[in-house]
Amino acid sequence: MTSHHPVAFGVDFGGTSVKCALMNSSGGVLARMSFATSEASRPSGWVTRVGDVCADLLEEAGLTPRDLRGVSVGAPGFVDYATGFIHELPNVPGWKSVPLGNLLKQRFLAPVTIDNDVNAMARGELAYGSGRGLGNAVFLTLGTGVGGALILNGRLYRGAYSMAGEIGHTTIDYRGVQSATSIGGLEEYIGNQSISATCREWLGQGRSSSLQAVFREAPESITPRLIAEHANVGDSLAREIFEHVAACLAATLASVSYLLQPEAFVIGGGVALSGELLFVPLWREIRRRLHPAFADRLAIHPASLGVDAGLLGCGAAVFEIG
Amino acid sequence: MTSHHPVAFGVDFGGTSVKCALMNSSGGVLARMSFATSEASRPSGWVTRVGDVCADLLEEAGLTPRDLRGVSVGAPGFVDYATGFIHELPNVPGWKSVPLGNLLKQRFLAPVTIDNDVNAMARGELAYGSGRGLGNAVFLTLGTGVGGALILNGRLYRGAYSMAGEIGHTTIDYRGVQSATSIGGLEEYIGNQSISATCREWLGQGRSSSLQAVFREAPESITPRLIAEHANVGDSLAREIFEHVAACLAATLASVSYLLQPEAFVIGGGVALSGELLFVPLWREIRRRLHPAFADRLAIHPASLGVDAGLLGCGAAVFEIG
Repeated sequence: MTSHHPVAFGVDFGGTSVKCALMNSSGGVLARMSFATSEASRPSGWVTRVGDVCADLLEEAGLTPRDLRGVSVGAPGFVDYATGFIHELPNVPGWKSVPLGNLLKQRFLAPVTIDNDVNAMARGELAYGSGRGLGNAVFLTLGTGVGGALILNGRLYRGAYSMAGEIGHTTIDYRGVQSATSIGGLEEYIGNQSISATCREWLGQGRSSSLQAVFREAPESITPRLIAEHANVGDSLAREIFEHVAACLAATLASVSYLLQPEAFVIGGGVALSGELLFVPLWREIRRRLHPAFADRLAIHPASLGVDAGLLGCGAAVFEIG
Repeated sequence: MTSHHPVAFGVDFGGTSVKCALMNSSGGVLARMSFATSEASRPSGWVTRVGDVCADLLEEAGLTPRDLRGVSVGAPGFVDYATGFIHELPNVPGWKSVPLGNLLKQRFLAPVTIDNDVNAMARGELAYGSGRGLGNAVFLTLGTGVGGALILNGRLYRGAYSMAGEIGHTTIDYRGVQSATSIGGLEEYIGNQSISATCREWLGQGRSSSLQAVFREAPESITPRLIAEHANVGDSLAREIFEHVAACLAATLASVSYLLQPEAFVIGGGVALSGELLFVPLWREIRRRLHPAFADRLAIHPASLGVDAGLLGCGAAVFEIG
């Protein structure tokens, strides 16, 4: 079926780098290349650069433009999937109201789809990673932001206006932290900056911790990764931070389970790399909040594709997997 | 298409009464009859009684069993839709592990489906009421319990194991009220008993209110309906109760909007009848918690079918509408 058009060109458009690859339908990468976002950050230059990269990669792989089955981009912001229109990429200057789908269609002969980066990652994990075979799954990424994507009845669910899955803004406290987007939104508690801020707040209260020396000398260097390092060698304040993160995250996972009853959550992003430090208290907190009829049927999988999830998801989009 | 089998037999199985009706595909009721749940509460007697009622109604409408297109039951509890198996009806003694679908198939020649009562109500509102034409909508019923049902991509969404939509157990406070099913579950704040309890708690603090006389003489007669009556004639404590309910409900509606981005919520049940008393503060609270990109595209509709929603939803199930 795919013999005439064996390859997908995927573009994982990040705030720091733009990763491009040619992929087959099994998730194999035939050729790849990246450039710094700053090198071609305006839309017109970006499209030219991406087109050139694609030509180079095709040549490298011994293929021609006729071998391209499609082009797919994952972009970090508000994207209208149906039209390929980018409303805004908050972390990339100059990207507001860009008809990227149309611009790319002028450069490529193959079909083009544009999705947001979290949907692309979710699709990658669904097609080739921890989500393989799941009909109903919720993907979360824990980082600076807390992103989400929903796989319902075997398909990415987009909602009425293509913006569903904003799990980071769902509330865990109706009288909680007020932000521009929510009151008590999950991201205000377990986004990287919030985790670091909570840790500094506790340290500022004079609590005993192996992090106190860092706090006095370079408080800004306290990150979730550093907290995890201290927790792993037994610092009790650092461990408490992860228990706090687990309780906040468990509240959301229990709510989403009651609402959508997925078979599994697939959790990616930096904080998810902390392993047992997060997942042991997470399960304990979920069981306090979720009836066994739901909890016993639920699985939680760490994401398995690492930094390539978004790129592979673009490939999956072209081959219409997931 | 439906000419050979023009009617559906629907059964709205409640804790107090069992309502039966013959309906056409337009939601028209051809004949109806109810009996008290206590008159035939055990499964075998219930099936016999329901079969007899159906025969009577067919005769009354001048029809025969061959005119039945199907039979559908909405039951108040945990139901496996796929198999018609009732796990448990918490408010109806004797209904645990009942293969109701199979029992009814022995009595009726037509196809049988069993669903939970909230799904049936949602389907009724979707097919014939406030939800008509909506592809993505979330139905809530506010009463003793807080129930929910999801219409996603034009269909009732059931989740991986047929138990999705339990919106009453989603959390609004990760450190909140602990119950058997949740920590900070919405129902613990805005279920009828919780609303009344909050009101009694505030009255017990000696706050001035036209409800104080009732509180001293018959505290158990304080219900959401009575609170609404006092709010409507200007009692400020009673109005504050509705503002509290609105804030709690808004937290959940904002979360569900971020997650699923429905076109609309359809809200039924007793508390929803309080009109502006609830809906004015509800919108104000939603706008504090939900980005305009979502809030501006959202509608909230009061349910329109009243007590017949479940029955009409059973009819819609037979005709496979919604």
